[in-house]
Amino acid sequence: MNFAMIFRILGWMLMFEAAFMAPSGVVATIYREGDVIWLLASMGICLGAGAVMVLVSRPKNRRIYAREGSVICALVWFLYSIFGALPFYLPGYVPDFIDAVFETASGFTTTGASILSDVEALPHWLLFWRSFTHWVGGMGILVFVMAVIPLAAGGSTMYLMKAESPGPSVKKMVPKAGQTAGILYKMYFALTALEAVILLALQMPLFDTLCLTFGTAGTGGFAVLNSGLATYSIPQQVVITIFMILFGTNFSVYYLIVTGHIKDVPKVSEAMTYFSIIGAAIAMITVSIHHLYPNVGLALKDAAFQVGSIITTTGYSTTDFDVWPAFSKWILVLLMFCGACAGSTGGGIKVSRIQVAVKTIAKELDSAIHPNSVKKIKYDGKPLEHSVLRGINVFIVAYFLVMAISILLISIDDFNLETNFTAVAATLNNIGPGLNKVGPTMNYSGYSPFSTCILIFDMIAGRLEILPVLILFSIHTWKDGELLSRTVRSRKTPRIADEELLDEGF
Amino acid sequence: MNFAMIFRILGWMLMFEAAFMAPSGVVATIYREGDVIWLLASMGICLGAGAVMVLVSRPKNRRIYAREGSVICALVWFLYSIFGALPFYLPGYVPDFIDAVFETASGFTTTGASILSDVEALPHWLLFWRSFTHWVGGMGILVFVMAVIPLAAGGSTMYLMKAESPGPSVKKMVPKAGQTAGILYKMYFALTALEAVILLALQMPLFDTLCLTFGTAGTGGFAVLNSGLATYSIPQQVVITIFMILFGTNFSVYYLIVTGHIKDVPKVSEAMTYFSIIGAAIAMITVSIHHLYPNVGLALKDAAFQVGSIITTTGYSTTDFDVWPAFSKWILVLLMFCGACAGSTGGGIKVSRIQVAVKTIAKELDSAIHPNSVKKIKYDGKPLEHSVLRGINVFIVAYFLVMAISILLISIDDFNLETNFTAVAATLNNIGPGLNKVGPTMNYSGYSPFSTCILIFDMIAGRLEILPVLILFSIHTWKDGELLSRTVRSRKTPRIADEELLDEGF
Repeated sequence: MNFAMIFRILGWMLMFEAAFMAPSGVVATIYREGDVIWLLASMGICLGAGAVMVLVSRPKNRRIYAREGSVICALVWFLYSIFGALPFYLPGYVPDFIDAVFETASGFTTTGASILSDVEALPHWLLFWRSFTHWVGGMGILVFVMAVIPLAAGGSTMYLMKAESPGPSVKKMVPKAGQTAGILYKMYFALTALEAVILLALQMPLFDTLCLTFGTAGTGGFAVLNSGLATYSIPQQVVITIFMILFGTNFSVYYLIVTGHIKDVPKVSEAMTYFSIIGAAIAMITVSIHHLYPNVGLALKDAAFQVGSIITTTGYSTTDFDVWPAFSKWILVLLMFCGACAGSTGGGIKVSRIQVAVKTIAKELDSAIHPNSVKKIKYDGKPLEHSVLRGINVFIVAYFLVMAISILLISIDDFNLETNFTAVAATLNNIGPGLNKVGPTMNYSGYSPFSTCILIFDMIAGRLEILPVLILFSIHTWKDGELLSRTVRSRKTPRIADEELLDEGF
Repeated sequence: MNFAMIFRILGWMLMFEAAFMAPSGVVATIYREGDVIWLLASMGICLGAGAVMVLVSRPKNRRIYAREGSVICALVWFLYSIFGALPFYLPGYVPDFIDAVFETASGFTTTGASILSDVEALPHWLLFWRSFTHWVGGMGILVFVMAVIPLAAGGSTMYLMKAESPGPSVKKMVPKAGQTAGILYKMYFALTALEAVILLALQMPLFDTLCLTFGTAGTGGFAVLNSGLATYSIPQQVVITIFMILFGTNFSVYYLIVTGHIKDVPKVSEAMTYFSIIGAAIAMITVSIHHLYPNVGLALKDAAFQVGSIITTTGYSTTDFDVWPAFSKWILVLLMFCGACAGSTGGGIKVSRIQVAVKTIAKELDSAIHPNSVKKIKYDGKPLEHSVLRGINVFIVAYFLVMAISILLISIDDFNLETNFTAVAATLNNIGPGLNKVGPTMNYSGYSPFSTCILIFDMIAGRLEILPVLILFSIHTWKDGELLSRTVRSRKTPRIADEELLDEGF
């Protein structure tokens, strides 16, 4: 284990966190908010701690491997949540430090779950920081920084990016990983700008526009009003509905559109399935809730908004869906688990994993009926590698295990089953609101510090898709560290070619 | 598809159901209950319908394959539930026919979920029939009949037995499948007799002894008193606790003991894990509920009883665990999913599947940390076949899908999430009571006929471990039937050797 290198990268990342805080300072200047001094203090702490870590560490080589990649990735997210909590904690807006870490982890992981009952009491600069974490987290902290400054030796950067990228990595866009990442960010920036422009055109105030756009782009879900998004105009809500769904779409669809291959879009089966699920869910919920509304149009609007918000794991709400019929609520719970597309900013299990899981069952049924038939499972026309299938199965099993144990641990607080179940589902899937005591009009402040820590763990585990966090907490990772590093080094592993790395997905 | 043969076997099975009803007639004679006329009528209907089916069908050959095996198995369980409902329905004790089918399916699948609020209103012969279905279902309807009279050609019987036997088939006891089955039934009979003798010695009335022993042996859960098992003496409750746990143990443990290999028992890792889980769960629940009891001993007794009852999927209750703290309730929910050992009469996912799933995650973590290591997953010292691993993964994914869709469908009735979630968990895992509106002091009569049908499906799907039922309802099974039968026949497939069949586990 290259501890010095881990330490060094974490140090650099901390200094970058200070940079991420800078735009909030601009907001404070505009609104003339004096307590921005606490933001500057937080930036100072990040810079100072980061600089010390960089200066103290003296790595003998700059190479890192898969194991270090996972560990760094998981640690960065915990570190960002802890240091990013300072602007909430230092000025006393969130008096409990663990609560402040929860709020920040919820931001970076694009969960959007809050412990605050009165967000309007926060100054503009702090609300901006809160929403800005969504935007940073949506595209990936490490991936962004690594794109700007390569901290590790050449190919090793891939190990960092792999640990942070969502989805089962079934396909890639272009041969070079670096290029793919670049294209993704351009599209992310362009879609963000487009949404902001349209919302401004619909006369949403600039501050609200920026914060809500960050929340939509990252599929986060923090709002700036206590009423959530209920008081915005219907056209504004519709625009946000559409952009939530767009940000949850597999970005390869946009790549096809931008490069003029629009006729190939229907071949991206994940996106098509995703749109079908959304359509079916909206239809079923509209039927189920229409009697609660003066007309079907309004029911449709709220159904579409909530379906878009939950399946993309954004978590915005325009209405208290906790009062909806059980049928609608269970559809929302299923959408929580389903999640958005791989290669988007959304969380959850991901549509493509569910597609593959269903195909696996169909294949098993087929081979039970025709014992002699030998078929390979195909996805988008290509046969799926055994390792991809195994990875998906392991993910699903690990996911339910983490969920079961998390619910057990937080149930020490003695809330009811619906609250605990949806609290874990909403944090592990990076959604935000659950049902009952953590419903859209409630918040997470009722949980004990211990349970809050569990939910912080779940948010980060969900964002990194479980494995990197399990690796971080596995004794095995740390046990025979020195031994392995030596073996690998003595074998003189050549610089890993981009192509090789890409075989394992981007 | 050999339709004639399917029809013929189903006809024979129906006639056997009449035979299974006979002992209840003896009970009626002893208690001089006149409405036993309805039992005789039910027997007549079963015999008549069965005889017609056997006489009408003229199979050209007596060979059946995997597909027919699955279809027959699934159909038999539905058929038994429908015809077995007649003794409840004809005399009007259960005025709604679907409810009567639910009660019977609950009996045969050893679920023990009831729609009756007052079981004491039933005559003795009907209570006896209700509990006797547990005992028949526990060892498997088809397996039992097939052992007595081989209806299909030689090796084909295996296809029937395979579809009905629980567990991932990781190991077998003796080389010949027939022998293994014989040994299992001898142990099932012996343990049943032992429990009955001990309960009689503890002065439980003969009728209660028989009914409760059938319920324990099949891990069913129907009681004969409205108070469940709360009013029996503490020694009687303790004996039932022990026997529930014994019937949930992998029967290969008893085989080792009987054949003098007692020192090999600790090598049966499933049984050891099962006992460890039981121990841990009892300890945690006792700590969690002790403040509700006058002394720790009573808390321990109820904790042990409930843990034994739920993990073995029996479903007896001595107390209303719905009032327990959330922590204890969630442990019970987890035990519902965990289930008992493979090769026992219990339901659920099964301890060995969970062991293997955890090993799979550990292996994936390991290969993420050491990308070059190649290890096979071992179970009880032997490397696991790829097909076994795949089967376990498919089972778990199919299981959660069936569960998610079932909850969606029954939530049309608009009960709360806790009720719907645990209703499906308790039926799919063949347990019986859930929480909230289907808690141990409540019953399932509140659900609509549609939801009741869904829950009947879940009970049978759970008992047959999902796949046979999915195959029954898959269009694919029926689509190219004739074509395939012809292909297979033209190939002149030789009579399948017992050894070949055993390779796929029994």
